[in-house]
Amino acid sequence: MNINPTRFLSDLHALRQFGASGVGKGVVRPAYSEADITARAWLAQKFEEAGLKVHYDPMGSLFGLADGPSVLLGSHSDSQPEGGWLDGALGVIAALEVARAAKESGGPAVSVVSFQDEEGRFGVTTGSTVWSGELTLEEADKLTDRTGTTLAEARESMASQAGNFVDPKQFTCFIEMHIEQGPWLDQAGEAVGVVTDIVGIRDMRITFEGEQNHAGTTPMHLRKDAFQALGAFNALIGERFKNVVTPQTVWTIGHVKLHPDAHSIVPGRATFSMQWRDGDADRLGRMEKIIRHAASEVAEAQGVGLSFGPMLGLEPVAMSVDLRSALEASAEEHAAGRWRKMPSGALHDATNVARYLPVAMLFVPSINGISHAFEEDTDEADLVTGLEVLAGAVARL
Amino acid sequence: MNINPTRFLSDLHALRQFGASGVGKGVVRPAYSEADITARAWLAQKFEEAGLKVHYDPMGSLFGLADGPSVLLGSHSDSQPEGGWLDGALGVIAALEVARAAKESGGPAVSVVSFQDEEGRFGVTTGSTVWSGELTLEEADKLTDRTGTTLAEARESMASQAGNFVDPKQFTCFIEMHIEQGPWLDQAGEAVGVVTDIVGIRDMRITFEGEQNHAGTTPMHLRKDAFQALGAFNALIGERFKNVVTPQTVWTIGHVKLHPDAHSIVPGRATFSMQWRDGDADRLGRMEKIIRHAASEVAEAQGVGLSFGPMLGLEPVAMSVDLRSALEASAEEHAAGRWRKMPSGALHDATNVARYLPVAMLFVPSINGISHAFEEDTDEADLVTGLEVLAGAVARL
Repeated sequence: MNINPTRFLSDLHALRQFGASGVGKGVVRPAYSEADITARAWLAQKFEEAGLKVHYDPMGSLFGLADGPSVLLGSHSDSQPEGGWLDGALGVIAALEVARAAKESGGPAVSVVSFQDEEGRFGVTTGSTVWSGELTLEEADKLTDRTGTTLAEARESMASQAGNFVDPKQFTCFIEMHIEQGPWLDQAGEAVGVVTDIVGIRDMRITFEGEQNHAGTTPMHLRKDAFQALGAFNALIGERFKNVVTPQTVWTIGHVKLHPDAHSIVPGRATFSMQWRDGDADRLGRMEKIIRHAASEVAEAQGVGLSFGPMLGLEPVAMSVDLRSALEASAEEHAAGRWRKMPSGALHDATNVARYLPVAMLFVPSINGISHAFEEDTDEADLVTGLEVLAGAVARL
Repeated sequence: MNINPTRFLSDLHALRQFGASGVGKGVVRPAYSEADITARAWLAQKFEEAGLKVHYDPMGSLFGLADGPSVLLGSHSDSQPEGGWLDGALGVIAALEVARAAKESGGPAVSVVSFQDEEGRFGVTTGSTVWSGELTLEEADKLTDRTGTTLAEARESMASQAGNFVDPKQFTCFIEMHIEQGPWLDQAGEAVGVVTDIVGIRDMRITFEGEQNHAGTTPMHLRKDAFQALGAFNALIGERFKNVVTPQTVWTIGHVKLHPDAHSIVPGRATFSMQWRDGDADRLGRMEKIIRHAASEVAEAQGVGLSFGPMLGLEPVAMSVDLRSALEASAEEHAAGRWRKMPSGALHDATNVARYLPVAMLFVPSINGISHAFEEDTDEADLVTGLEVLAGAVARL
């Protein structure tokens, strides 16, 4: 199978023009935005030119289908609110190139996918979660983004193109190529990582309901300050996690909204995101207990109300042994001594696809480990090496 | 002087229809909003009917001027983003009623004012600060609200009505009637508070600049999480203030903005408001030192950047002894045994007016001490008692 690195790189750069941030190579292409929808239309045309049958499912996930049984490759083309040019896009364009090269060389049948809303405007890997049957479309439609828009409203914009959900039985397996989004390969000067398993994630919103009041006339001892409740909660879980976590465990409060959010008003309400990740499902559960207990204790101690949003999440998933072997053999051929086996700290659509198919993943380095930011980048030589390893693995299947 | 409680209360209820929130008696009437501008137009008509000369200054502060030397009474008619019906409005309508009653009974000449942006959409008591010469109009025009709108842009909407700044020499003194906005009078079952002095306030924005990154793949020990810096700062000042503050001292973090504010991204930036108040200027200064040192220590310890916005604020101000005596004598007549002397924890336009004139303030109770919220309210009997005390004090001058 003869892949074409020039064609691959030029398509990859072409895709980042959709929603280009104007800051470095950054992109702003959240799910169902105009930039996302036009990018998918461009991808659909590329799939067609590659002799693949274009198909959108009800979520707006875009497939390029080969005839008969085929290997499925791909990732996602939506981005974070402020995202990099490779997060997701790399896996889709690499899949496109391998599908083209395989067809040109009469190689194995390869289908391509770009799942919708992997970045979780409405949840967590929403498109592949619904496709995998983990969440019904009816349930998903009730999910809202931070502005209150429902998924049902958002996917209306793609409804005209939508067909049925694709039958997974036509696929033999799924391989997703992706940037590492962490520092390890870059720090070691290695080109490729073959993923052993994907960590699990838990994600929920928590709200403390205090008492909105005047910031000058309400004595400190009479206040029910929702932001102070958040501060106490954050400190408390930091303490209690110490006995439970490993160096691979992470937790993040990335979103905070105070109400009414004014200098001269004691915050009456604080709503924030609580997300935590680990490779061990039991540990995720123990952390959830700590979180719920700590929040309740703080609410009781400070006399404020407490409510938990629905908990979204994904279980840790082990990669297919056979697919890993193919990737490892190919990595040894194309990047001898410059690759490693590693877990994925980020969640990926592969986690959902694993409900139907054997899955595997392939990483290339993220310069300085930076991702989910406009500065995200990877040396083009490493991008091409990753593509070679992917193609070599597919050829081996 | 015969005040008319019915006329007073009916005007007070009429004013709350402008920007009525639909929740209780709450109002949404921030400075320069359409509700604020139409409310001022209605007030201007009332002033005219009371035989006062209507005058808007360049900031949009509205005066009803009596002929010759006069006592100035008033407050403000703009509201918090979610405000009560009495905060400011009470002092303006009480002033209107006393001016009307004085004119009808051939009493002393009384002028009325509703200052603009007391609630600080663009700063702190912005309208009276500029009138008092503490801040030039050119400087003030550069102030921005949280959406980035400049004061210059906002006051454009009132420019057509604006005349010059009013010469303070025509006024002999200023008395502002206001709700307490705190719990003390209500808890004691008292009707009136005669203010001894107004606490000083300091208000600034602080920004921690961390490193925006992926919340799944960035190990905790490599993070530069701007929200965690805010959390550490909040805890540290809470500790250090213990040795400096009194039960009357307050401090508030009421506004927090994370960037990019997403569940799956380590916050790269946290901008927040830091406001503190006390009756002792030295203590305010000692707290400022603690705040700046604590922020610097946290920034250094966590390897994040730090920047301070301009510090706005007002010095503590003592009320005029003569005006206080008049108010105390009137309180003893109309609310014997049901009034007290007390400091004001809230800042008021009187603080700025004190640069030109002897000033005094009069409080009525806030039910449950609630203010800066839709639930803010006061028993109408207490509103009328306050009006009687104000009118009696003016008659005594």
